[in-house]
Amino acid sequence: MRYSRRMERVKPSAIRSVQKKIVQKQGVISFAAGLPDPDYFPLADLKTATMEMMEESGRSALQYGMTKGYAPLLDLLVERMRAKEGIDAKPENILMTTGSQQGLSMCAMLFLDEGDVVVAENPSYLGGINACRPYGCGFIGVDTDEEGMVIADLDNVLSENPKVKLLYVIPNFQNPTGKAWSLERRKQFMEVINQYDVVVIEDNPYGEIRFRGEAVPSLKSMDTQGKVVYLGSCSKILCPGLRVAWICADESVTTQFEQIKEGLDLQCNQFAQMQVASYIQKFDLDAHVETIKAAYKKRCDLMLSLMQEHFPSSVTYTKPEGGMFIWVELPTSLSADEILDDAIESGVAYVPGEYFYANEGAKNTIRLNFTTVSEEQIQKGVLLLANVLKKYI
Amino acid sequence: MRYSRRMERVKPSAIRSVQKKIVQKQGVISFAAGLPDPDYFPLADLKTATMEMMEESGRSALQYGMTKGYAPLLDLLVERMRAKEGIDAKPENILMTTGSQQGLSMCAMLFLDEGDVVVAENPSYLGGINACRPYGCGFIGVDTDEEGMVIADLDNVLSENPKVKLLYVIPNFQNPTGKAWSLERRKQFMEVINQYDVVVIEDNPYGEIRFRGEAVPSLKSMDTQGKVVYLGSCSKILCPGLRVAWICADESVTTQFEQIKEGLDLQCNQFAQMQVASYIQKFDLDAHVETIKAAYKKRCDLMLSLMQEHFPSSVTYTKPEGGMFIWVELPTSLSADEILDDAIESGVAYVPGEYFYANEGAKNTIRLNFTTVSEEQIQKGVLLLANVLKKYI
Repeated sequence: MRYSRRMERVKPSAIRSVQKKIVQKQGVISFAAGLPDPDYFPLADLKTATMEMMEESGRSALQYGMTKGYAPLLDLLVERMRAKEGIDAKPENILMTTGSQQGLSMCAMLFLDEGDVVVAENPSYLGGINACRPYGCGFIGVDTDEEGMVIADLDNVLSENPKVKLLYVIPNFQNPTGKAWSLERRKQFMEVINQYDVVVIEDNPYGEIRFRGEAVPSLKSMDTQGKVVYLGSCSKILCPGLRVAWICADESVTTQFEQIKEGLDLQCNQFAQMQVASYIQKFDLDAHVETIKAAYKKRCDLMLSLMQEHFPSSVTYTKPEGGMFIWVELPTSLSADEILDDAIESGVAYVPGEYFYANEGAKNTIRLNFTTVSEEQIQKGVLLLANVLKKYI
Repeated sequence: MRYSRRMERVKPSAIRSVQKKIVQKQGVISFAAGLPDPDYFPLADLKTATMEMMEESGRSALQYGMTKGYAPLLDLLVERMRAKEGIDAKPENILMTTGSQQGLSMCAMLFLDEGDVVVAENPSYLGGINACRPYGCGFIGVDTDEEGMVIADLDNVLSENPKVKLLYVIPNFQNPTGKAWSLERRKQFMEVINQYDVVVIEDNPYGEIRFRGEAVPSLKSMDTQGKVVYLGSCSKILCPGLRVAWICADESVTTQFEQIKEGLDLQCNQFAQMQVASYIQKFDLDAHVETIKAAYKKRCDLMLSLMQEHFPSSVTYTKPEGGMFIWVELPTSLSADEILDDAIESGVAYVPGEYFYANEGAKNTIRLNFTTVSEEQIQKGVLLLANVLKKYI
């Protein structure tokens, strides 16, 4: 078979090999996941919402619909983005996608030519980077501090690299670091990018899962030049299996996305869009999100306090105000990847942080997930991990 | 905004402008649709299947799943392809897609480099052609006769054009012509393509909707060299709103599709895959397809007999053995596109056939759909159309 040249750039996710190792060893406590906790899916309410929707308009839910998406859902999302993110949008700005991953791959398709450069936080979400790879772009990582992307570094990168076309950022509780950007840093970021002919992808799957601190407005809400493409998702606040997510962009850009979407897969699942609309109309999504936040906060706090107690003092880590992940830095001489087999043998797993870099990554880093482990597993797992780390430090 | 260069090739579907015209004029009888009849969606049974699935395994249905697809559904599709299409496949050969449209766009992404050539039936499904356009390929159309693609023409095209990489064909009740290929022609086609380093996309959404004549095995069932990528779909035999479709290919090719899919959207809707699996396990999909076939046959036969009676004798048309469409040829001096406004004014609509060609199309052609019109509408609509045609002939 003669595949296209772009396939030389498409590589299987490195995280898969970690997951395979974990599956092979029974009983491992896994901090390596990236999933929401299924115990917090509102199953009973979704069942009612689904049944009532099928009774009211089942045949429309099973038929083809609009490429842009199900109109009543677009209205509900406009309302929610206004309330939660300060975004002033109309249904014309929105297009539904199959998960935010499709939003990412559609951005890559819409904007990237071979040789273009994508700037991302260093580290960043691997799926965002991989969505761009087929298009033959280069990547430049910009470091973050506790306030967000380091502005001086960003400015340098943009002024020195005229081929930068896209910036990919996750300003709320980033995967993998769990960091959130401050308001001041967001303003500075927008000031800088407004001086360049670039597009920003603001990926915000975790924004509503803030369990500490004050909510900070989205970059999109500060976007006066129509440069931000905002990606929203129901995967973390409701459930990922329905793959209901959306793009919010300037209307002229959304029209382009619509044409791409038509060629890609005509439209998203109509039934799922109507399920979600029915659920939002009939139940209290805000109250449900509060439940998730309380559960995740408890687990995150427990994990942090155990890490504080048991980890060697040379190990540092983020203290997330939301989301699903903690980012750990070991002494620079250590490789988390090399320690992983030992950790799995001891009964605990994580993802080495180096996999989350577009280019060369920091080998002494670890991503820990706290959403799919019980408090008992956290108790046990952090101790196991602490003991493994102590062997090397 | 600086869009990618590929966006210069992405154009909105010409069929949309027809649909817009129709919507603007109330009460028009539309033969311009391309949808299955929603009255024949098995709504009550799908509701039961959905409810029971949510009770049995609701949380899994709402969670992330495998990129390839939901394993029990893959098993059911293997079984069905064996029974209906003579295809000897394993679950390893299958990857679920968001409608067959995604199968098409993934084939384009996997195989096409700029300058490659795609061979398609002349005319062909516009969505298939549009899925390829972003990748900068050329198109060559090969004519069909009543048996299928004209083999001598195909052989000429392949021998004269070494840049041909993909062949896109719909051997059963093609959209837009309604034609089905004979067994002999399929064998000849496979003999020819086996002599070249090419890949065949066999798009088969309508195969099971055969309401006349004998079933003919798929090209994939005759594929000894792993050159055929088969696209199956639940959209026409069950419903399109769930977007449940699949690719069946050589395992090495499916592995490549899996990597592409991961970057595109991670995976299809898990819930919808489990809905369909539950429906197939608990209800009789074969019996349901018989119901659809009986309904569509009745409408097709009525339409054909009225056309026979009322159309000017210089107008010719296909007599489909299945599917959803009839293809009409007017005297060559006429343009169906120019007549369309007059037809809509008279109260009847169709899609001009010229839109279904990758390159220049035959202006004297019309696609008629018979699945979303009642018998009463067919009675009235064919008469109206006959009267319009008589004005020009």
